[in-house]
Amino acid sequence: MILPENFRKKLHTIIYEADTPAGKFFDLSLIVIILISVVAVMLESVASIKIKYGYELGIAEWVITIFFTLEYIARIVAVKQSWKYVFSFYGIIDLLATLPKYIGLFFPGTGFFIAIRAIRLLRIFRILKLTHFVGASDQLVAALKKSRVKIAVFLFSVIVLCIILGTLMYMIEGPESGFTSIPVSIYWTIVTLTTVGFGDITPATPIGQFVSMLIMILGYGIIAVPTGLVTAQFINEKTPENTQVCHNCNAHHHRDDAKYCYNCGYKLN
Amino acid sequence: MILPENFRKKLHTIIYEADTPAGKFFDLSLIVIILISVVAVMLESVASIKIKYGYELGIAEWVITIFFTLEYIARIVAVKQSWKYVFSFYGIIDLLATLPKYIGLFFPGTGFFIAIRAIRLLRIFRILKLTHFVGASDQLVAALKKSRVKIAVFLFSVIVLCIILGTLMYMIEGPESGFTSIPVSIYWTIVTLTTVGFGDITPATPIGQFVSMLIMILGYGIIAVPTGLVTAQFINEKTPENTQVCHNCNAHHHRDDAKYCYNCGYKLN
Amino acid sequence: MILPENFRKKLHTIIYEADTPAGKFFDLSLIVIILISVVAVMLESVASIKIKYGYELGIAEWVITIFFTLEYIARIVAVKQSWKYVFSFYGIIDLLATLPKYIGLFFPGTGFFIAIRAIRLLRIFRILKLTHFVGASDQLVAALKKSRVKIAVFLFSVIVLCIILGTLMYMIEGPESGFTSIPVSIYWTIVTLTTVGFGDITPATPIGQFVSMLIMILGYGIIAVPTGLVTAQFINEKTPENTQVCHNCNAHHHRDDAKYCYNCGYKLN
Amino acid sequence: MILPENFRKKLHTIIYEADTPAGKFFDLSLIVIILISVVAVMLESVASIKIKYGYELGIAEWVITIFFTLEYIARIVAVKQSWKYVFSFYGIIDLLATLPKYIGLFFPGTGFFIAIRAIRLLRIFRILKLTHFVGASDQLVAALKKSRVKIAVFLFSVIVLCIILGTLMYMIEGPESGFTSIPVSIYWTIVTLTTVGFGDITPATPIGQFVSMLIMILGYGIIAVPTGLVTAQFINEKTPENTQVCHNCNAHHHRDDAKYCYNCGYKLN
Repeated sequence: MILPENFRKKLHTIIYEADTPAGKFFDLSLIVIILISVVAVMLESVASIKIKYGYELGIAEWVITIFFTLEYIARIVAVKQSWKYVFSFYGIIDLLATLPKYIGLFFPGTGFFIAIRAIRLLRIFRILKLTHFVGASDQLVAALKKSRVKIAVFLFSVIVLCIILGTLMYMIEGPESGFTSIPVSIYWTIVTLTTVGFGDITPATPIGQFVSMLIMILGYGIIAVPTGLVTAQFINEKTPENTQVCHNCNAHHHRDDAKYCYNCGYKLN
Repeated sequence: MILPENFRKKLHTIIYEADTPAGKFFDLSLIVIILISVVAVMLESVASIKIKYGYELGIAEWVITIFFTLEYIARIVAVKQSWKYVFSFYGIIDLLATLPKYIGLFFPGTGFFIAIRAIRLLRIFRILKLTHFVGASDQLVAALKKSRVKIAVFLFSVIVLCIILGTLMYMIEGPESGFTSIPVSIYWTIVTLTTVGFGDITPATPIGQFVSMLIMILGYGIIAVPTGLVTAQFINEKTPENTQVCHNCNAHHHRDDAKYCYNCGYKLN
Repeated sequence: MILPENFRKKLHTIIYEADTPAGKFFDLSLIVIILISVVAVMLESVASIKIKYGYELGIAEWVITIFFTLEYIARIVAVKQSWKYVFSFYGIIDLLATLPKYIGLFFPGTGFFIAIRAIRLLRIFRILKLTHFVGASDQLVAALKKSRVKIAVFLFSVIVLCIILGTLMYMIEGPESGFTSIPVSIYWTIVTLTTVGFGDITPATPIGQFVSMLIMILGYGIIAVPTGLVTAQFINEKTPENTQVCHNCNAHHHRDDAKYCYNCGYKLN
Repeated sequence: MILPENFRKKLHTIIYEADTPAGKFFDLSLIVIILISVVAVMLESVASIKIKYGYELGIAEWVITIFFTLEYIARIVAVKQSWKYVFSFYGIIDLLATLPKYIGLFFPGTGFFIAIRAIRLLRIFRILKLTHFVGASDQLVAALKKSRVKIAVFLFSVIVLCIILGTLMYMIEGPESGFTSIPVSIYWTIVTLTTVGFGDITPATPIGQFVSMLIMILGYGIIAVPTGLVTAQFINEKTPENTQVCHNCNAHHHRDDAKYCYNCGYKLN
């Protein structure tokens, strides 16, 4: 779509930035509308509320959907390389925030699509990106990313362990105690190892209870591993040290913002 | 209320301080009475005890309420700027410790207000403030405060995750398995992700059980995040940094073994 | 009791020390007998086993009790200041390991006392004290001891929180949902906050479920506090650093076993 | 079995190494077949799937078993000291991956042995050994190994605690509330202490609920211990120590910024 360059720039400032009063107002309204919309989706799913306020919720939903559609169009025209936005993560989320409602118009039975609207909530993260939360969350994400290989190794081992222990419990307990199949037994093992413990399936035989005890103590112990990994990462993140070595006295472990050697006062370069 | 200045000062020493024998005795009695009062509130709620000892508990409650009322008045008159106490956190707690009983006198049906008396327990924290626990609890609170932005980001992300996963589970399981609405599904998701696992609602379909497994392993993993944050904070509280400030450029946070300012190279002494 | 000094010394070496072959054999036998005895107590409590093997278990129990009685007497005569042993922690444990059986002889109905025999298991810790586990467990205990004030402050706050939240849940849910009294509500709150989640009592009202969610997320978060405390303590335990400062170059953070300054090579004293 | 040395070497490169295209292809195929095989074992245990696709699953199982048998033979002939492979950990796993199927041929009722096939999954770890995961998992294993004595002490104490608390709960609650025997009570105690909380057995008496609260708070607290241990280990793994060894006195573990040996004062270079 061709727009006067001036207008496009203004639109861009309002929609994508948060430095002007108009931009801040736009962001704030968007957060409020997203929250209202998600609350509406939730309330609609409660049978007693749907019967009473179904009509009002339906109107609200249409108003919000049309607003989101207009916003989606505005977002497309406000950037020069529209396709880049359309195929970006948030571009797809934005589309999914409006599309299901229109699809539901043509295929009335698709209540399934309606519930997809809950992912509208993800849109809030874009707005928070522009705030002062960004530093803290960046650090969190960075620490988790650096531990990701170790966490993957850990999770893989846990899953293999759960499959083997689940099969063992299936062999011990059998269908009479609720361990009707190996997948169900694995489900039970994960429920137990992660210390969730629903209690929908519980071991009935003494041997089964004994193995359960081992699984529980194991689960109690191995929770230490991801915690240890992430904690060690967080601590290492926090000591921002320089890899510089002083040319004069060879001292290292300089602060990240050091300009002079803490040991001999020589200028670092 | 106008009191002889001498008497007001003495009262202040007894009530607000704990250095004199009288002040210590006052604090100790108060702790004992608060504990008795809270135990009485608890016992009153047990049907079998209320039938048997309802009369005695009623009298005890009135004695305690009158004592707390007198204490409240004494606290007001003992400080010069009474209104400052009245509107302080503990001033409001102290009022809430006595008022519900009097309100219950005029509106007999308000059992609701009676239970509010449990917040009397908060009054104990004021007394502990005067003891040697204060150092330890201050360190705890300081460490938690410094992590608060990160913890907020973490909690916000967890809540968004729970809303989206809860909606997903509602779509998968539906009302037949107890996932009667999206709010209930979100409740179930939080019960599962936090590894509480009541078992009042459990997934019945294979797909639901599969998604549950992912949620549980996720919950098992992300518990590492707040733990890591708080631990890193606790450890950083203790890292050896120098309290020296550079005489030349005023930089601080020097390494404990720094001899020269890391910022301007000036010799530290 | 008067024994030849020579014999007393020999007995002491066998019973209280583990350096001689006889002492090692004595310790090992004792561990085996304690374990057999505890397993016997357990098996006796299983109805089906008691019916089948009750007679054999009864005889085994008497043999073990007589052995423990002889050992108790030997322990008394083997030390010079017998009363010191008798009133020590392990002296009382040793007495409790035999006495209930004799009391049960005169008062046949006291099945209660019989189960006390499980504390015999505590006797194992005395023997382990003499092994190489001692270093590791001492470090554990030392780290926990150093955190004890902070852990106490934390636990006290958690308990106050549970009482207030329990009362709140009692006010919200009431007896119909199983929250029959405030003590029961507090029990439920602790079950939930600690992420145990039995599911014997669960909130039924939307407000109750909402407050439950807050309690669960709170519990998920505050588990970080004791973990952080203990971890920080363990880490601090492990960096055994010297408080010495070099007289020549003023460097500190010397290794605990340093004899020379790591910075200038000057002899530390 | 005697093979031309050339062929044996080629076979060894393909089977045991992953540097050649053929070796990589072999490893990848093996992973895929192992996963298919484990999924087949799982599906076979689901009654409705077995009725529908039992025949197809049976054929797939035989194809996989024959493939694994051929692979097992190839692994034996590909190494010079065959017996070393046969009695190694993975040699036994490989045998157990095929043998049960053949045993089931002669003893048709042994469904038990069939489920053993789930340990085939362990074979995947061998292949991952050859990948870049090895660094991360080695670090994990090393950190856990170094904490093993402390973890053993901790687990032993927890088990003794559970036996004593379990007996106590048996004495308090008795068979009417589901605490039918001491072993069952110990099972319940572990379920509670590890914060799993199935809810199949729950305390019914006020005293039992009170002791349960103590157990839960205890369990909430002591989870800090393994976490603290492992975290401290992970962090210590990363502490900046010098790999230098003093040329004079052979001391190591120097501080990263050490210039002189802490032990003898000799200049490090």
